[in-house]
Amino acid sequence: MASPSSLTPPPVPPELHVTNRETLLNSLRRHLSESSRPLYGFVLLQGGEEQNRYDTDHTELFRQESYFAYLFGVREPGFYGAIDIATGKSVLFAPRLPAEYAVWLGEIEPLSYFKERYMVSMVHYTDEIATVLHDEYKGSGKPVLFLLHGINTDSDLFSKPAEFQGIDKFDTDLTTLHPVLSECRVIKSDPELALIQFANDISSEAHVEVMRKIRVGMYEYQLESMFLHHTYMYGGCRHCSYTCICATGDNSAVLHYGHAAAPNDRILEDGDLALLDMGAEYNFYGSDITCSYPVNGKFTPDQALIYNAVLDAHNAVISTMKPGVSWLGMHKLAEKVILESLKRGRILVGNVDDMMVKRLGAVFMPHGLGHLLGIDTHDTGGYPKGTERSKEPGLKSLRTTRELQEGMVITVEPGCYFIDALLVPAMGNSNTTKFFNHEAVSRFKGFGGVRIESDVLVMANGCKNMTNVPREISEIEAVMAGAPWPLDK
Amino acid sequence: MASPSSLTPPPVPPELHVTNRETLLNSLRRHLSESSRPLYGFVLLQGGEEQNRYDTDHTELFRQESYFAYLFGVREPGFYGAIDIATGKSVLFAPRLPAEYAVWLGEIEPLSYFKERYMVSMVHYTDEIATVLHDEYKGSGKPVLFLLHGINTDSDLFSKPAEFQGIDKFDTDLTTLHPVLSECRVIKSDPELALIQFANDISSEAHVEVMRKIRVGMYEYQLESMFLHHTYMYGGCRHCSYTCICATGDNSAVLHYGHAAAPNDRILEDGDLALLDMGAEYNFYGSDITCSYPVNGKFTPDQALIYNAVLDAHNAVISTMKPGVSWLGMHKLAEKVILESLKRGRILVGNVDDMMVKRLGAVFMPHGLGHLLGIDTHDTGGYPKGTERSKEPGLKSLRTTRELQEGMVITVEPGCYFIDALLVPAMGNSNTTKFFNHEAVSRFKGFGGVRIESDVLVMANGCKNMTNVPREISEIEAVMAGAPWPLDK
Ligand SMILES: [Mn+2]
Ligand SMILES: [Mn+2]
Repeated sequence: MASPSSLTPPPVPPELHVTNRETLLNSLRRHLSESSRPLYGFVLLQGGEEQNRYDTDHTELFRQESYFAYLFGVREPGFYGAIDIATGKSVLFAPRLPAEYAVWLGEIEPLSYFKERYMVSMVHYTDEIATVLHDEYKGSGKPVLFLLHGINTDSDLFSKPAEFQGIDKFDTDLTTLHPVLSECRVIKSDPELALIQFANDISSEAHVEVMRKIRVGMYEYQLESMFLHHTYMYGGCRHCSYTCICATGDNSAVLHYGHAAAPNDRILEDGDLALLDMGAEYNFYGSDITCSYPVNGKFTPDQALIYNAVLDAHNAVISTMKPGVSWLGMHKLAEKVILESLKRGRILVGNVDDMMVKRLGAVFMPHGLGHLLGIDTHDTGGYPKGTERSKEPGLKSLRTTRELQEGMVITVEPGCYFIDALLVPAMGNSNTTKFFNHEAVSRFKGFGGVRIESDVLVMANGCKNMTNVPREISEIEAVMAGAPWPLDK
Repeated sequence: MASPSSLTPPPVPPELHVTNRETLLNSLRRHLSESSRPLYGFVLLQGGEEQNRYDTDHTELFRQESYFAYLFGVREPGFYGAIDIATGKSVLFAPRLPAEYAVWLGEIEPLSYFKERYMVSMVHYTDEIATVLHDEYKGSGKPVLFLLHGINTDSDLFSKPAEFQGIDKFDTDLTTLHPVLSECRVIKSDPELALIQFANDISSEAHVEVMRKIRVGMYEYQLESMFLHHTYMYGGCRHCSYTCICATGDNSAVLHYGHAAAPNDRILEDGDLALLDMGAEYNFYGSDITCSYPVNGKFTPDQALIYNAVLDAHNAVISTMKPGVSWLGMHKLAEKVILESLKRGRILVGNVDDMMVKRLGAVFMPHGLGHLLGIDTHDTGGYPKGTERSKEPGLKSLRTTRELQEGMVITVEPGCYFIDALLVPAMGNSNTTKFFNHEAVSRFKGFGGVRIESDVLVMANGCKNMTNVPREISEIEAVMAGAPWPLDK
């Protein structure tokens, strides 16, 4: 039997994180120079720690904190990491493990193991942070520690500044590091792109696998299981970028379906649309891909109408993306293409520009067009200091409104959903009721929705779609009927 | 093609949690009566909340807190639950969800949905706790809330007593509930046993599936992926009882291998032993199963020697288990059987009783023989108030030393490992060096270890092994060579 995968997990170059540290160092030095501050002190980050589930001794599978992963690539819990701004030297601080660790959890690696594995200048124990940093310090006065403290504009949560015994022997700066480091993560280096590409390759392949095996009568979670298995078995991806959304029928209108209270547990029915939003993570770097298609393998005319409206928006955006283009503008472009299609399909009536003014796009696509992607699925840097979210429907859900820059990876994920909670008020509102062909809309009761999501790299003269799954209706129907992917020409 | 599974996820009777609440109520009332306290007040528990990963908006897949799951079976986050000690009425308090929840996360269920689904007397919102409980209270004075506060003897962590706005209008009792509720969980009801049995059935089947597909050249994590896929795809098990331990070669001597710092990433070699400790969870109830066998499907004489030593211990314990038997005694029985086998195999020399006195068993089996199993893999009640852990090697690792009682489910998991960190000191120690055939032991350098783990129900006149996997060497070799399981007679 042919292997169900043509892929092999690529080696991860530890230089990737060395480069990330250099990127930060250059950026931080430039920033300090511009404000005439001395180029002394240390960046200090505290890595993540293993967590127990409530009071039990069930330990959750550890995943490194994302900023720490970016700078140091450390997979083990309980570390700290520092970068000397004056010399560029990097230091890891490893937890001092008790002797019985060797019996229960594995060999206790010598410090040299971490030095080599993570390509840092030196490694000490976490109880030596104060001493080591004082010894290394060549400036005058108390050494300054640049700690990570700032808000995540997607969660509104704050990062946790490093804490350790002896921190009182240092001055601490809580404001400088976060915006600089967040910004570093926005532009991806080539080795980072290689990992995101692999996460895309294995996830694309897994989506095709699910497309081939989906059947009426299955549970939604079986699609999730197939996806997870493919990406782990053949891609070595132990983590997903996010909880799989395997929404069928009406569930496909629930944007973040799949969580514990809506756990992918519906049985697939003939005539359902499936909206599958699933992406694997490889060595910290993620992917985020959505495919939508009929469970039975053949689009109905109504399904084709909505699907093509979204696909046209997806393609229009990708054809336009290049450095300098505004993401807010791309969102509006997608809205407009979708509204035009709905008008052509006689679901909407009237002037599309008027609809745009009344924000009708947000009734059908309440979420943002896409978000930066990297170590976090909703990656940092969406709203740098001084920029603000729109308050308008749809636009306020955008996770970024920036101008595109070369090296950004951003998802393009237009959608069109029939959500009663939004449609009923809009159709009843005297300002917008006239745009709806009420009879036609009623045909879509219980239809759910369509989303098409690809991960796109902004390049010097345009962009590159890193996702490779069947998108045209003819392609999807062919693959679901057994054709190979990519299709033979 | 025949389906790879003969199983179907069973429906979960909501009465299960009704029964659990009755069990607690009876036990708590008895306890209060015995100390001449009034039968008034409320048990109040706070369910688990969804967690973000660090500062990001990555939400971890929610799993209900175990005590709350036991009493209420609620799969959604953010709930509270109360039981009225006077009337036995049960109340759930649901979070008041914002309107936009419907767009992003799914339909907002009416309170009646939860009342029916979880078979409670009434459902209110979490901002109504103080009012509702005051209204329901029929006693005199301030109502007493029995809150959950106590130590988990496996993790040494404390459960979190419920907190809510208005708690100052109540008296709180932090000491009564925890020991009573922990003890309720020790004896399993028939509906609980049915879930543990299903978790065992699907996990046993998945172990057999892995046994059939394991090949030299695979990565350890591919075994994990196959197991997870089988239990989710065919058993609907979204959660595992614990992180899979897929240890091969030398790794099989690391008792809790498989975590993030030792992530099942070795390539399987010809001649390796595999030690696979994996168990699925079904509707909160777990399983915990270990199979050990050669990757290439054929035991060498040395592998057979150690394997049979452990299997004999496993079988000797199961033949002896019944109510009234001491678990500490079972641990020592297992040790003795293993030491006798090692002596017969000329790895040890001398008097086995002397070896027992010198705690030599703990050199080869540093962990406890087994632990209570239920909603937690290491389930509550191992050391009730007033009981203490042994300080002796091996025995101190026991998660319980209780007498067996009908209705307990406990794992039987003897093991025999060649761990340098334990062997080198014991062989060098003047008290124990004489017991070792040093030349023979050296043959086992890098051998790893063997563990055999089954989940066993204590019954009135003996016990029942709920796990069903090939255990005899002949059975394992037959199944790995393609025979069906169970074997045709
Ligand atoms: Mn996305
Ligand atoms: Mn166990």
